Amino acid sequence: MLDRHSTAASKLTEIVSAIAEQRSTPAKEIEAARRRIAESDGEVGAFLRLAPDESLQAAAASDGPLAGITIGVKDIYDTRDMATEHGSQIYRGHRPVADASLVSMARLAGAAILGKTTTTEFASLDPTPTRNPRNLAHTPGGSSSGSAAAVAAGMVPLAFGSQTGGSVIRPASFCGVAGFKPSFRLFPSVGMKTFSFTLDTAGLFAATAEDLALAARLITGRDFGAGRRADGRGLRVGFYKSAVDDEVEADMQAAVAEAATLLERSGATTVTVEEPASLTAARSCHATIQSFEAVMALSDEFRRHRQRLGADLGAILDHGATIEPAEYDEARRTARIGRKAASALFETVDVLIAPSALGPAPRGLASTGDALMNKLWTLTGNPVVNVPGLASSVGLPLGVSVIARFGRDALALDVASLLQAMIAAPENAGS
Amino acid sequence: MLDRHSTAASKLTEIVSAIAEQRSTPAKEIEAARRRIAESDGEVGAFLRLAPDESLQAAAASDGPLAGITIGVKDIYDTRDMATEHGSQIYRGHRPVADASLVSMARLAGAAILGKTTTTEFASLDPTPTRNPRNLAHTPGGSSSGSAAAVAAGMVPLAFGSQTGGSVIRPASFCGVAGFKPSFRLFPSVGMKTFSFTLDTAGLFAATAEDLALAARLITGRDFGAGRRADGRGLRVGFYKSAVDDEVEADMQAAVAEAATLLERSGATTVTVEEPASLTAARSCHATIQSFEAVMALSDEFRRHRQRLGADLGAILDHGATIEPAEYDEARRTARIGRKAASALFETVDVLIAPSALGPAPRGLASTGDALMNKLWTLTGNPVVNVPGLASSVGLPLGVSVIARFGRDALALDVASLLQAMIAAPENAGS
Repeated sequence: MLDRHSTAASKLTEIVSAIAEQRSTPAKEIEAARRRIAESDGEVGAFLRLAPDESLQAAAASDGPLAGITIGVKDIYDTRDMATEHGSQIYRGHRPVADASLVSMARLAGAAILGKTTTTEFASLDPTPTRNPRNLAHTPGGSSSGSAAAVAAGMVPLAFGSQTGGSVIRPASFCGVAGFKPSFRLFPSVGMKTFSFTLDTAGLFAATAEDLALAARLITGRDFGAGRRADGRGLRVGFYKSAVDDEVEADMQAAVAEAATLLERSGATTVTVEEPASLTAARSCHATIQSFEAVMALSDEFRRHRQRLGADLGAILDHGATIEPAEYDEARRTARIGRKAASALFETVDVLIAPSALGPAPRGLASTGDALMNKLWTLTGNPVVNVPGLASSVGLPLGVSVIARFGRDALALDVASLLQAMIAAPENAGS
Repeated sequence: MLDRHSTAASKLTEIVSAIAEQRSTPAKEIEAARRRIAESDGEVGAFLRLAPDESLQAAAASDGPLAGITIGVKDIYDTRDMATEHGSQIYRGHRPVADASLVSMARLAGAAILGKTTTTEFASLDPTPTRNPRNLAHTPGGSSSGSAAAVAAGMVPLAFGSQTGGSVIRPASFCGVAGFKPSFRLFPSVGMKTFSFTLDTAGLFAATAEDLALAARLITGRDFGAGRRADGRGLRVGFYKSAVDDEVEADMQAAVAEAATLLERSGATTVTVEEPASLTAARSCHATIQSFEAVMALSDEFRRHRQRLGADLGAILDHGATIEPAEYDEARRTARIGRKAASALFETVDVLIAPSALGPAPRGLASTGDALMNKLWTLTGNPVVNVPGLASSVGLPLGVSVIARFGRDALALDVASLLQAMIAAPENAGS
C-alpha cells in the first residue's frame, strides 16, 4: 500500500460556497491569497509578479460566480495589466493590449487574476528556479512550473497552465495537485504564446477534480459534470499498458495498480488495455510535429535571437529546422491514424488509467522531468485529469491519469473525482 | 463569350528571374514598388503604412530567393517594425515584439515587407475606405481589402491576407488577381489576430497562380508544383453545383461555364458534381462556429470595448454570445461530417470549379460583398485558388475557384495555372 501525501491546497469549491453563504468575501479571499504568497513564495518561487492593486480592487467588487477565486496565470498567457514575458529575455517587460481569452473569460466570471506564474522558456524545457512545495529539493515539473507549485502550496485555489507535451499533467503529478488537460481546443488558446499549433492545449490546476470541473464550467459556460458519481458501479476502467511502460518506476506502477484496486472497490470493473501499434507510432511522431511547428511558431525569435535562447529550446529548434516538410506530413498522418485508434479504445472501456509521469518529481532543479507518459494524449487530443493523493515512501506525490474519449471531458473529471475520493477516504488509507 | 480584364499586376516570377539574371536588383524593385504606391495609392487606399527605411535597406541587401519581392501584409499580421492595428481603434499604434510566422519566413527568404494593408475590423465585415483598382466606384471586397487591391493595382507582386469566410478568394475575384487559400494550417497562422480558431487561414495574393506557387514554395520550403502542366489531358474536372447556386448572378455563372469549356478544350474531361446534403448542412453551420469562437477569441475586446466596435462586428459578437455550447458542438460535428464528404467528392474528380463570388464586385464601399461561395471550403479546409482573367461586360473581374482535396494544394495551383493560361491565350479570347 502506498502512502498518501498531505495537502495545503485551497479548495475552490469551498471558497465558492463560503462566499455564497456570506462566510467570506472576495476581498478577504484576495487578501488571504496575497498573504499566503508573501509568506511562502520566497522559498517556492511560483510567482513572477502580482496584479496591480486596481485590478484586484475591481475583482474584489465582482459578484460573479467565481468572485473571490484567485488565479495564478502561467506567463505565456497575455494579461493586459501585467507584463507577459513567456519565460524569455526577448519579451522582458512586454505588455499585451488585451487579455488572453481564458483570462478574459475568468475575469468575466468574477475571478481575480492574482499574478503571473513561472514558465520554462516559451513553455519548453529550460527550467525555472521554482521549487516543488512538497519537497524544496525537487523540481515542480514543467513547463507550467509556477502554476502547479502555486496551487500545491495553497497560495491560490486555481491556476492556468498549458500542455504541448506533458506540461500540465506532469507538474500536477509532481506537485500533488489535480490537473486538467481538456480535449484539444475545447478551451480557447487565443492569447497563449504558440509553440506547436496542433498540440498546445490550455489547462487548469486545482486542489481537486471537483474544483477543476466547477472552474471549467464557470469559465466556459459548459457542463463539466464531476463530483456526482457516488460509486463506480457500471464503470468500465481500462488499465492502459503502453509500449514504454518499462521506463516507469516501480512506485509509480504501484500507484496505478492501487488506483485500479480502489476503483474496483468502488464497484467499477477493470480490464487491461494493451497499446495498439498505431498509438506507439503516434507517440514517437510527437517530437517531429512539435519541433517542426515550433520552428515556424517561433520563427522570428529563433532567427533573430538564437543566442538569447536557452540550451534546451535552442537544441529543439536547431533540430526542428532540419526536418523536411515530407517528414512532418508523414508524422501528421501517423497522428491522424493515432487519433482514430484512440477513439476505438473507448469502445470497450469508459476511461483509461495510466501513470501521470515516470515516477515522483526528480531531485534537483536542472530538469523538469520527462513527458513520455503524457505526450501521446496531447497528440491525440483526449481529455486527461491528473488525480493526486498517492505518494512514494518518502512522501513525494505520484499522480494517476484518468483519460477519456475525445469530448468526454466531463466523464474524465467525474471518474477522477471518484478516484480522488477513494484515495482520500480514511478506510482506504491504511489497508 | 465573356470579356477579359486587363491587368496592371506585377509578376513575381518575372521579378525573380530578372534579379537572378541581374537585369534588376532588390533595391531597384523596392524603389519601384514605393514609386508605384506613391503614384496610385492616393486613390486606391490599399496601404496603411510603409516599412521604415532601415527595414527596406536590410531587405535590399538580401540575396535570398525572394530578394526584391515586395510584400503588402494585411494589418492583422504582427510586424516588429510597423504598427499592427487589426483595423481596430483599440489597437491604435500597437507595436508587436515579433513578426508573425509567415512574415518572418518571408523575410528569411529575402522578401521586403513593404507595408501594412487595410483590413476590415478584426478581419470581419466593417469596410475600409479602400477602392477597387479595376473600378474605383466598387468595393475591392474584404476582409483582405488592401492586399487584394495592392496586387491588382500593380503596387506589389505579392500580398498576405487571411480567410475565415471568404476573405481571400472573394477580394481576389473582385479585384481580378490570383488568390490562394491553402489547406487549413498548411501555412502557420501564428501572429495573425485570431477571429475563429478552427477557420482562420493565412492566404496569398499575386498576379498569377504560378506566382502563388513560387511564393508559397520559397516561403515555406514545400513543393507547391504549378505551371508545369502543359494541357488538361487526364484531368477530371467537376463543375460544382451547390444548393445556393440560385444566388449566383448570370455573368458569374457564365464565367464558370466558360472555365469548364476552356478546360475541356485543354484536354480535360468535365462532369457535373451535385452538392451532397452533408455539405449544404456544413455551409449553414459556418456562422455558428465562426461567431461562437469569435466571442471567445475577442473576449477582452468585446467585453471591455463593445462601444468601440463597428456595427457589423458588434452584431456578430452580440449574436455569438447567445449561442449555447451544445449548439456549437453540434455545428462542429456537422463540420466534421462535411470534411469527410468533401474528401469523398475527390474520389471521382481531381478538382472542382465553382464561382469565387456571387458576381462582380458590388458598387459602393458600404459592403465588402458576400462570402456565400467561399465559406464551405474554408470550413472543410480544402485548398482553393481564385483564377482571374474573365470579366463582365463592363470590365469587372469574375473569378473562378479551383478547389482540390485537402493537402493537394499543388494540384489546385497547377490546374489554376492552366486555366489562367487558357483564359489569357489570345486564341481563346475572341472565340
